[in-house]
Amino acid sequence: MDPQDFRFSTQISHLALDIGGTLIKLVYFSANGDNFEESSDGSIVVRSGCSVVEGRLCFAKFETRKIDDCLEFIRFNILHHSSGVKHPNGTAMDKLSVKATGGGAFRFADLFKEKLGILFDKEDEMHCLVVGANFLLKVDGDGEYERISGTSLGGGTFLGLGKLLTKCKSFDELLELSHHGNNRVIDMLVGDIYGGTDYSKIGLSSTAIASSFGKAISDGKELEDYQPEDVARSLLRMISNNIGQIAYLNALRFGLKRIFFGGFFIRGLEYTMDTISVAVHFWSRGEAKALFLRHEGFLGALGAFTSYETQSHNNDLKSYHHTVEREIVNCSDDKIRHMPVTANLNDGETIECSINLV
Amino acid sequence: MDPQDFRFSTQISHLALDIGGTLIKLVYFSANGDNFEESSDGSIVVRSGCSVVEGRLCFAKFETRKIDDCLEFIRFNILHHSSGVKHPNGTAMDKLSVKATGGGAFRFADLFKEKLGILFDKEDEMHCLVVGANFLLKVDGDGEYERISGTSLGGGTFLGLGKLLTKCKSFDELLELSHHGNNRVIDMLVGDIYGGTDYSKIGLSSTAIASSFGKAISDGKELEDYQPEDVARSLLRMISNNIGQIAYLNALRFGLKRIFFGGFFIRGLEYTMDTISVAVHFWSRGEAKALFLRHEGFLGALGAFTSYETQSHNNDLKSYHHTVEREIVNCSDDKIRHMPVTANLNDGETIECSINLV
Repeated sequence: MDPQDFRFSTQISHLALDIGGTLIKLVYFSANGDNFEESSDGSIVVRSGCSVVEGRLCFAKFETRKIDDCLEFIRFNILHHSSGVKHPNGTAMDKLSVKATGGGAFRFADLFKEKLGILFDKEDEMHCLVVGANFLLKVDGDGEYERISGTSLGGGTFLGLGKLLTKCKSFDELLELSHHGNNRVIDMLVGDIYGGTDYSKIGLSSTAIASSFGKAISDGKELEDYQPEDVARSLLRMISNNIGQIAYLNALRFGLKRIFFGGFFIRGLEYTMDTISVAVHFWSRGEAKALFLRHEGFLGALGAFTSYETQSHNNDLKSYHHTVEREIVNCSDDKIRHMPVTANLNDGETIECSINLV
Repeated sequence: MDPQDFRFSTQISHLALDIGGTLIKLVYFSANGDNFEESSDGSIVVRSGCSVVEGRLCFAKFETRKIDDCLEFIRFNILHHSSGVKHPNGTAMDKLSVKATGGGAFRFADLFKEKLGILFDKEDEMHCLVVGANFLLKVDGDGEYERISGTSLGGGTFLGLGKLLTKCKSFDELLELSHHGNNRVIDMLVGDIYGGTDYSKIGLSSTAIASSFGKAISDGKELEDYQPEDVARSLLRMISNNIGQIAYLNALRFGLKRIFFGGFFIRGLEYTMDTISVAVHFWSRGEAKALFLRHEGFLGALGAFTSYETQSHNNDLKSYHHTVEREIVNCSDDKIRHMPVTANLNDGETIECSINLV
């Protein structure tokens, strides 16, 4: 997308960030231009009589190591509202508070303060994840959740190992590569061990992976002798299978049969979703099912974004958070609703939504 | 060990094999020399009056890709008894039946028949694993078992990926290397994401691994820029943690708090056992415990070995299996008992045991 487009269409915005070890995810609200009109003194105000501002939730991501690009994006699109904002008590605000979650909310707090004058209002990572998922699912839960488990073998491992093994530079490149590979070149299959036959007694077909990367032991090959696409494919299968298995085993503890997957490792990619689905199906013997959300990579950022709303109910600073440029909108008790998603799954995709005004 | 030593001390033997995708494991019984005496015709027979043959269970392993070494070892030590054996009906046997399990029992059946005149009497892999574990644990169960789960991320993955990443040639070399490495160089820790602090709300310390190999994403380094020992260490942590987690999650399904680990990935190595123990402790919040058996790599082979015994109860060929050279011992209903293990955990270590004769 062209940042320029955003600059001129963005008249009102909430910004929230989810800063992880690998990626920074941004969610921000961009109001439609026809919500506004020019006032007599030349400033832009909400069209008179408007009680709802229509607009879109926008998504953007940056690699954490390229955090400067992220800072520039925020500055260029004036997402941080660093000027013209007044505190409810009437004094001008030099520093703005922005919802932020993920470990980077701690790690980079000083950087954002220094470069953009932003103070991070830190939200718990797990909380945001749950709230973000509920927002996408249109679920109103009781607000109770528990972190049950986790794994260190996720998207970071896929890209980290993938870079070392294939010299790919990016996630997209590695995934694209994996689509053209054949995991049977390096994975040891049940059939490789059993002389081409199944181990049917325990339900393992000859094509089941017995040992990820197991053939590399006896092939007598060096890394350079393998095709990078085959390595990438084996890696994707290994990580996806493992995620599916661990998720299923945890779901089993609570008798759950539907498992929602999120995170940028998935990103709406069919082969990744397929592999995870197959893994859940395999380990559960068809009992459980994998489900995927659109915008699944932005759950944390969405959760941080919607936490503005929650806070406004019982916080004196509510109008501070929801005040936008020139105080044209004085929000309180605003509700963010979202419409069914109809667009494709590109990073630049937006969700139509609206904010209720006082 | 010097094969020569075995040749001359081996007077009676059962041989059993567990042929996996990576390793071939052998278990065989070697009787003590003082059980025997020379008969009048010059042949070696069991000392008269003996009803129990004392001896040792011996263990040996070979890489599956070096199967020729294994064949030579068996031939040299006459473990296959390819001559002088008579069928119970009195006819000489050209082919001998030997207990074998693992996928290789299928894959290499023709090779063993051709090279050594051995016919594999195939035993189910899971069955042998359970029987072998019970043998070591001195447990008499009801013979019921179920394969609950598995993972493709085991010793084969450790060595396969390890070879590609470090150019190590063998398991021992890779493990030795890992002892000198530091996983924090390549793994992304919670503290790396959270700016050095814990994510204490959910019990993650700053040193917990958030993403195995996650730092390789943003370091801007190539594989060659990392120390092989650090790569090996991260790999060992990744595989061990994952095994511990999956094992714990499965144990949880059945309310089990003690988990026994086996397989050649462990091999009595302290750091591997430590990592698995820590993983089980971590994921179970101290509720479950990891336990390790001596000879844990030989469970399948031990199970195949002891299945001779079981079969002898109701099989006309019982004396065929237990007949040794020159028919000096005619076993039936023999029981294999084992003594407490006192020696160290070397490959060449043996378990003292005895076979009851008719």
